[in-house]
Amino acid sequence: MKLLEEKIRKEGIVKEGNVLKVDAFLNHQMDVELFHEMGQEWKRLFEGRKINKILTIEASGIGIACVAAGVFHVPVVFAKKTASINLDGEMFTSKVESFTKKKVFDIIVSKKFLGPDDHILIIDDFLANGCAVMGLIDLINESGATLEGVGIAIEKGFQQGGKLIRDRGIQLESLAIVESMNADTGEIIFR
Amino acid sequence: MKLLEEKIRKEGIVKEGNVLKVDAFLNHQMDVELFHEMGQEWKRLFEGRKINKILTIEASGIGIACVAAGVFHVPVVFAKKTASINLDGEMFTSKVESFTKKKVFDIIVSKKFLGPDDHILIIDDFLANGCAVMGLIDLINESGATLEGVGIAIEKGFQQGGKLIRDRGIQLESLAIVESMNADTGEIIFR
Repeated sequence: MKLLEEKIRKEGIVKEGNVLKVDAFLNHQMDVELFHEMGQEWKRLFEGRKINKILTIEASGIGIACVAAGVFHVPVVFAKKTASINLDGEMFTSKVESFTKKKVFDIIVSKKFLGPDDHILIIDDFLANGCAVMGLIDLINESGATLEGVGIAIEKGFQQGGKLIRDRGIQLESLAIVESMNADTGEIIFR
Repeated sequence: MKLLEEKIRKEGIVKEGNVLKVDAFLNHQMDVELFHEMGQEWKRLFEGRKINKILTIEASGIGIACVAAGVFHVPVVFAKKTASINLDGEMFTSKVESFTKKKVFDIIVSKKFLGPDDHILIIDDFLANGCAVMGLIDLINESGATLEGVGIAIEKGFQQGGKLIRDRGIQLESLAIVESMNADTGEIIFR
């Protein structure tokens, strides 16, 4: 998606350790008009899929998922990263390792909001090693829901997540795929 | 706001300890069409205010804030609850005590995204003791930005947060104010 690639080139910052900072528009400050365009692009790419719910994971996926859900006219469910006293009842659970926070955490979704009748589109901001998406797929499989596809804003094409998901025959639509980036020059090459 | 009150009556669950569970539509599963109506209501209530940015706090405020921001045509910034390696540079920080998680945590916003030129509307899902909003107001004051108002989905009118904020002369618009609720009967009375 040209618009997103241009935004990444203009406002993204490449840091040591394969970190791409896009906090000016994607995951700290959020450009919701851009999110709306992204939602429309996913709507086009997943045309024909009968999607009745979007699943994402807190925190930075929520904004993108909610704006995209407005285009799809479906509700969003977000997986929570820790249990709180407000989240009682039975849950689907999985484990995810965070690339940026360097730790493992549990993700949970209430059984009330995911079940065999659901046709799910997963939306998230980043795809790197694929742990977060794999965790969400675990929850979907546990629930008996159908995974219709995965929509990602930025995929790090030089990490394994994209291949892992595509090799399972899942429709993965990443709106920008970073092939390589250089922290010294700031250069970003898209696939 | 009638639509929100009806939704709370229909799908909200009153639990012991003054807990109102609205995870079916507000903060776990999210009804984004309802969020859009809420955004339009805040737009009407804050008419005449020159708002250029919405500030919220992760995680459950993000969805509401992003959909409302689509109505206001402004970006969203969300305060993060813990530092991650992706959030370097200088930050505004404050401390917040969580009612539901029973712990104190730091909230941070990058200095890049909050400054003297900003006119901020705070949006959040719940207002109870007011700690989260007070923490966000701290960040705004530290940055030199102007607070234009606070938009809340559900205020617990029997806790102190609403009074604390209104007593400071801040325009607070809660779309539903729960005056009292009864965990035995499930009854909810709105102000």
